[in-house]
Amino acid sequence: MPTPLSTPGLKTLKKIYQSQQSYTRKTPLIHSEELGARVRGKVFVKAESLQKTGAFKFRGALHRLLQLTEQEKSRGVVAYSSGNFARGLAAAGEILGIDVHIVMPADAPKNKIDSALAHGAEVKLCDESQPSREEAAAAEAVKLSQQHNYSLLHPFDDATLIQGQSAVAMETSEQLEQLGETCHFLLCPTGGGSLVAGSSMVFNTVNYPETKVLAIEPSGYEGMTLSIEQGRRARANGNLVSSCDALQALSPGETNLLIVQNSEVAGLTVDEAFVNEAIRFAAFNMKLILEPSGAIGLGALLQHSEKFGGKTTVIIASGGNIDIEEYARIIQQ
Amino acid sequence: MPTPLSTPGLKTLKKIYQSQQSYTRKTPLIHSEELGARVRGKVFVKAESLQKTGAFKFRGALHRLLQLTEQEKSRGVVAYSSGNFARGLAAAGEILGIDVHIVMPADAPKNKIDSALAHGAEVKLCDESQPSREEAAAAEAVKLSQQHNYSLLHPFDDATLIQGQSAVAMETSEQLEQLGETCHFLLCPTGGGSLVAGSSMVFNTVNYPETKVLAIEPSGYEGMTLSIEQGRRARANGNLVSSCDALQALSPGETNLLIVQNSEVAGLTVDEAFVNEAIRFAAFNMKLILEPSGAIGLGALLQHSEKFGGKTTVIIASGGNIDIEEYARIIQQ
Repeated sequence: MPTPLSTPGLKTLKKIYQSQQSYTRKTPLIHSEELGARVRGKVFVKAESLQKTGAFKFRGALHRLLQLTEQEKSRGVVAYSSGNFARGLAAAGEILGIDVHIVMPADAPKNKIDSALAHGAEVKLCDESQPSREEAAAAEAVKLSQQHNYSLLHPFDDATLIQGQSAVAMETSEQLEQLGETCHFLLCPTGGGSLVAGSSMVFNTVNYPETKVLAIEPSGYEGMTLSIEQGRRARANGNLVSSCDALQALSPGETNLLIVQNSEVAGLTVDEAFVNEAIRFAAFNMKLILEPSGAIGLGALLQHSEKFGGKTTVIIASGGNIDIEEYARIIQQ
Repeated sequence: MPTPLSTPGLKTLKKIYQSQQSYTRKTPLIHSEELGARVRGKVFVKAESLQKTGAFKFRGALHRLLQLTEQEKSRGVVAYSSGNFARGLAAAGEILGIDVHIVMPADAPKNKIDSALAHGAEVKLCDESQPSREEAAAAEAVKLSQQHNYSLLHPFDDATLIQGQSAVAMETSEQLEQLGETCHFLLCPTGGGSLVAGSSMVFNTVNYPETKVLAIEPSGYEGMTLSIEQGRRARANGNLVSSCDALQALSPGETNLLIVQNSEVAGLTVDEAFVNEAIRFAAFNMKLILEPSGAIGLGALLQHSEKFGGKTTVIIASGGNIDIEEYARIIQQ
């Protein structure tokens, strides 16, 4: 049995969402007839790729910074990130006037590194990959926080951050209500699990009891899926090549797993070929640029289409930050 | 002096917009801080590339078909189009159960031809280019309408169609109102002029008297700009290479010009290099796929940035239907 965890109620989550609105963009919830036809169901895409900084992570980063004390704000923060959290945190720090230091794996996508720099963050590249690229960068961030007295922010395993990420789902639920639509499946791209944990606090609750929230992971990096199945934090092999650079955490966050266990989330993995097909589908049929990690929910729908027949599915397309050479290569396949 | 033309009031235009809403998507009005920083002003992008069929033309086509008599509906319609009207008309015909026949220039983008076919339209390709590719296709459409008793629909010179296109501006104005924002410049990609004419019925009126509506045209195809300057329908040379395949009408529609003259629209031309830069800007900074004709408003802002300093500008990004090889080539430049 998972440890009981007190999560905020919908009223609190609604307030958190509202407190972001002067900084964030309301992203569209797009009804895709073409996707619906593919699965013989109804499909909506929540295009968080159109969020400021090109990914949903901006919401959580902003909320996390807003909760710092004045003293913490003046000292600055440090975090490690494979990319989208770095970019979101840098932009949020720039808006709020807080110094941001970030450790990134040296092989992070160039566009994400450049964008963090453009928003005024100090970026340190880490080329150590043992025990994993994420863990090496994390250790470096801890060292910096101790040396300089920066607040150490975790890119996903953080209750406040998760509450900030819940705003994606809160906005989606309001849009569904306006349309008079239900939601049987909510597909959340999952690395460490902040999006899926935040989303499961909004859906599969009093508001949308009928919703099954799914954690979508790349094959080889299904740490959340394994953890849910085994009832404890498990570790994926990380032994397959995946272009989903934002979803390569081998284990979910502790907090994230607890929240997810409390709300009966299930895991689903997607093969690389379907991630690429999803990127092409979004380009040709929806005119949306998605990065691999942002397209994986759509990839899940394409790979496991039989699962979604006759149902209403909402896919969170969580980000669009992809290097352009890589993007051109995928869409021309 | 232009002939006075009675145009519908805002109340009628609002009704037209509302009558579309169950068929169309509400597209986002995106505040772009990056574009604002470029011109030292405030900039919003109305992403009609995310409209059903990937372009604004769907709105006008749908409204036009809804106004047919039952007898006309049962006989079917014929139109000529360089692409986006074809795709929009085909999709609207499919939804409403009306047979659609379309004559397209043989060199129209493949994705636009394929999409019209996919929506069940009958497509006839026309490889005649004298006196211009548009006029040759138009003559062919007239012939078909006479032979088969189809209703002949004009892709832009049609008061009902223009009223249908006004819905883009009506939706934009409602979004601006919700944000409490004004609009000093509204940038409308212009070929035959249905978007700019429809938009000028909503803006620069009682609602937004401070708005200057601009017809944005590719260099070499500035038929609307010349016509406004000369106070009568004029003809552009069409002697430059332009990738804006949807904006190559050499003269504006008669009805379109009359409406535009009544509301003090001005013209502005954009060079090919800035159209390409706009496509790259939308990709890198906004994660939006735009076709050249859809990016030209953004190109106008980049080329004539001094014009927009200190002001609030709304750019209509009218479409995203571009062949993928061409797109990959432009973004990799």
